[in-house]
Amino acid sequence: MVADSDIDILGIAGIDDAGPGDLTFVSNRKYVSHIKHTKASAIILALDIPAVPIPSLRTDDPYMAFAKAVELFYSPPCPEPGIHPTAVVAKDAHLGPGASIGAFSVIGKGCILGSNVVVHPNVVIYDCVRIGSDVILHAHVVIREYCHIGNRVIIQNGAVVGSDGFGFAPSKDGSYYKIRQSGCVIIEDDVEIGANTTVDRAAVGDTVIRKGTKLDNLVQIGHGSEVGQNCVLAAQVGLAGSTRLGNYIRVGGQVGFAGHTYVGDNAVITAQSGTSHDVEAGAVLSGSPAFNNIEWLRSVAAFPKLPNAIRRLRQLEKEIERLKESKKPDATK
Amino acid sequence: MVADSDIDILGIAGIDDAGPGDLTFVSNRKYVSHIKHTKASAIILALDIPAVPIPSLRTDDPYMAFAKAVELFYSPPCPEPGIHPTAVVAKDAHLGPGASIGAFSVIGKGCILGSNVVVHPNVVIYDCVRIGSDVILHAHVVIREYCHIGNRVIIQNGAVVGSDGFGFAPSKDGSYYKIRQSGCVIIEDDVEIGANTTVDRAAVGDTVIRKGTKLDNLVQIGHGSEVGQNCVLAAQVGLAGSTRLGNYIRVGGQVGFAGHTYVGDNAVITAQSGTSHDVEAGAVLSGSPAFNNIEWLRSVAAFPKLPNAIRRLRQLEKEIERLKESKKPDATK
Amino acid sequence: MVADSDIDILGIAGIDDAGPGDLTFVSNRKYVSHIKHTKASAIILALDIPAVPIPSLRTDDPYMAFAKAVELFYSPPCPEPGIHPTAVVAKDAHLGPGASIGAFSVIGKGCILGSNVVVHPNVVIYDCVRIGSDVILHAHVVIREYCHIGNRVIIQNGAVVGSDGFGFAPSKDGSYYKIRQSGCVIIEDDVEIGANTTVDRAAVGDTVIRKGTKLDNLVQIGHGSEVGQNCVLAAQVGLAGSTRLGNYIRVGGQVGFAGHTYVGDNAVITAQSGTSHDVEAGAVLSGSPAFNNIEWLRSVAAFPKLPNAIRRLRQLEKEIERLKESKKPDATK
Repeated sequence: MVADSDIDILGIAGIDDAGPGDLTFVSNRKYVSHIKHTKASAIILALDIPAVPIPSLRTDDPYMAFAKAVELFYSPPCPEPGIHPTAVVAKDAHLGPGASIGAFSVIGKGCILGSNVVVHPNVVIYDCVRIGSDVILHAHVVIREYCHIGNRVIIQNGAVVGSDGFGFAPSKDGSYYKIRQSGCVIIEDDVEIGANTTVDRAAVGDTVIRKGTKLDNLVQIGHGSEVGQNCVLAAQVGLAGSTRLGNYIRVGGQVGFAGHTYVGDNAVITAQSGTSHDVEAGAVLSGSPAFNNIEWLRSVAAFPKLPNAIRRLRQLEKEIERLKESKKPDATK
Repeated sequence: MVADSDIDILGIAGIDDAGPGDLTFVSNRKYVSHIKHTKASAIILALDIPAVPIPSLRTDDPYMAFAKAVELFYSPPCPEPGIHPTAVVAKDAHLGPGASIGAFSVIGKGCILGSNVVVHPNVVIYDCVRIGSDVILHAHVVIREYCHIGNRVIIQNGAVVGSDGFGFAPSKDGSYYKIRQSGCVIIEDDVEIGANTTVDRAAVGDTVIRKGTKLDNLVQIGHGSEVGQNCVLAAQVGLAGSTRLGNYIRVGGQVGFAGHTYVGDNAVITAQSGTSHDVEAGAVLSGSPAFNNIEWLRSVAAFPKLPNAIRRLRQLEKEIERLKESKKPDATK
Repeated sequence: MVADSDIDILGIAGIDDAGPGDLTFVSNRKYVSHIKHTKASAIILALDIPAVPIPSLRTDDPYMAFAKAVELFYSPPCPEPGIHPTAVVAKDAHLGPGASIGAFSVIGKGCILGSNVVVHPNVVIYDCVRIGSDVILHAHVVIREYCHIGNRVIIQNGAVVGSDGFGFAPSKDGSYYKIRQSGCVIIEDDVEIGANTTVDRAAVGDTVIRKGTKLDNLVQIGHGSEVGQNCVLAAQVGLAGSTRLGNYIRVGGQVGFAGHTYVGDNAVITAQSGTSHDVEAGAVLSGSPAFNNIEWLRSVAAFPKLPNAIRRLRQLEKEIERLKESKKPDATK
């Protein structure tokens, strides 16, 4: 740490909002130029940022240091343990020690919950659900029948786990026949699921979100899909049915994945892209349909020039026609 | 059926997951090559698939046969008939025989529900709603005032039917004046609505989802839109206000429809496309803005070549300039 | 008004649906040609529309006149004031006069609600929330801890205000460490939020929706973003974290905004576009990535011609090669 005096830090704030008494941080290079204007009393910085005139904490991972610092200043309100008298818990449901079950929540028959599970108000857990320990289900979450939730899973408000997959067999008369969705959804340990996100069950087989993966808000996980470990899917991403994502994959907002495809480990799909085929491990793809990001960047840079290029092409065709004319043996001679 | 011995089938599973005792199926040609590796004890196959070494059930519609087979092995848990003591049902609401009304559900004044309606917990039905028979409303569904739901409709968790349309009149000071949304939403028979999907009411006139149509999760149906019979709309599709879709239309995920447009019967719009105009019956469209799918496939295949094409164009321009130069009468002679 | 007799107007309807006794209107030029077929008894028209054969009300703002006319014919059902006996309201929560708190709603510790707030059934308000007067929260809305809601705000069903932002610090082992989201969400006066829309809180600093702005359904507002005054964001729009929108901005459906960017006042972003950089005030942008709308219209019109252009380019290259060949001194002479 570089500091020229004792300072009291009373809070933590972004670089532009911080005032006296605040600790701030810069992890995104885009904001380095903002340092000179900040009113913060101290700053967390990467080792390679040049010296600054305010007390600074140097670390090779300023974003992680910031994450830990937030915890010193803020704890979200936590419901007390106990079952709210209005909650409806099936007689044969088993709740581990330390459970907090909120008002108007419903826990179905045969459910088994681990220790220290927090169920906020108005959560509905259908029958035969298994939930690990230290799980937080926010208000209005639904967990459908037979689903499994691991340990330390956090599910934000309004998310639905285990809704029926979109599976219909077309009949000869053009109508659709609903296929019963008998599969279950498995959410492994340390997963977080965003608000109003939906994870569908399949007709047969499981839909799986593997350990450590984070889904943002309004994401759609189609029936029978599998998302590997430690992936991050930004808001409004959609996976069609039977999509399989490997591990450590990063997906920008509003991306769509075609069904029955596989995406290799460490792939990156940038925002609003759409994949139509399997994706190789480590690929960085963009566009709809998606292809190599570097090539895509060149193509989209060229796209505004396309109308002019077609005009120039027509011009060239005329000129060549003229050149060819002028080369013909002169029949009038 | 082709079988060389008596076999006991105990379950049903996908081609790759099936084990001994499982029935499996292949309806998607992509999976034919997986047959030789399956451990299933029997398989449902189309008539035209070559002979396979395991007992097989041949049918001209393997997907439908699979749908029926699932029903032999799985029944979802079904709430018992009766009104949960915590439910709040308006005195003048009329419930048909066999109704099952879940905990913490609210049924408003003047509502009329047919027979065998299943209302899961925490469903809210506003005043004056009419619901047919054999309807299933999953936990956290909302049906707003005056809406009509037909027979055998299934609505997945968190879906909202009848929320206010996005209608605002711009004022001269740049603010927006809310237009009361007096229309209602009509959901016809045999419709299924996906989790967290929203169907808006209009200022005047109805928003209609016609018989047999299936909406996936997180779909947005704008105010005053109409979706015809037996359409399928995949997840995250959005219809702006006053869009009219005909019958038997298939729409891929994340497609957007401009408002005040009409889409003809049997049209197919592929994933992530956006329509800006009326669409002819039977058209297959892709892209944003969408055009003929075959032409679009050619265009997107050519798109990565665009930067190089512009480079080659510049090169040609130079060469032609040189050719023209060399043809000029030599002024220095 | 132009009218040749006394007429009784009993209702209001769209131009195509209106019957005898109905008032209708035309504000969208696209529907002027429909006037001659309408069965309406009277019509609201702009001053510059040519004379029509039915009684007409002329105004310079027919859409606003229509908005006011709807109010003459329709009032949505309004819950009576009072706290439903099933609602769970914290002892220290403060409710202003005229509040209507619906069945199975939860109001947390330390909440302060202004006068005439309508809380529909199954709404969950976490601890320490402040809400102004004349606010309507529809069934299944969630307001998370410490958020502020202004006056005359309307929040449609299933919307979530204050869910945790998507903030995770990557660890060296490839897993993600959740960053506590200590910021709050501020919804200013006269905002409307659509059904199942999500507005995230940030790790530090506020997420703000400014006065008069309207968000449609299924919109995602990322953590720490700010939307200025009197903006309209159509359905399924997504803002990544720390996006800042100015005032009077209009955004089409399914648009995505990259994070850490600024969009100037009065900008218009058309449907399905994606911005990757800051946007100038007054700009009209389209495409993904977005650029000037006029240029984009030309580019997308040219896009279907791209495959043919590349073919013609190859043809030209061959012809030039031939021309160059023919100009070479003949070595055989």
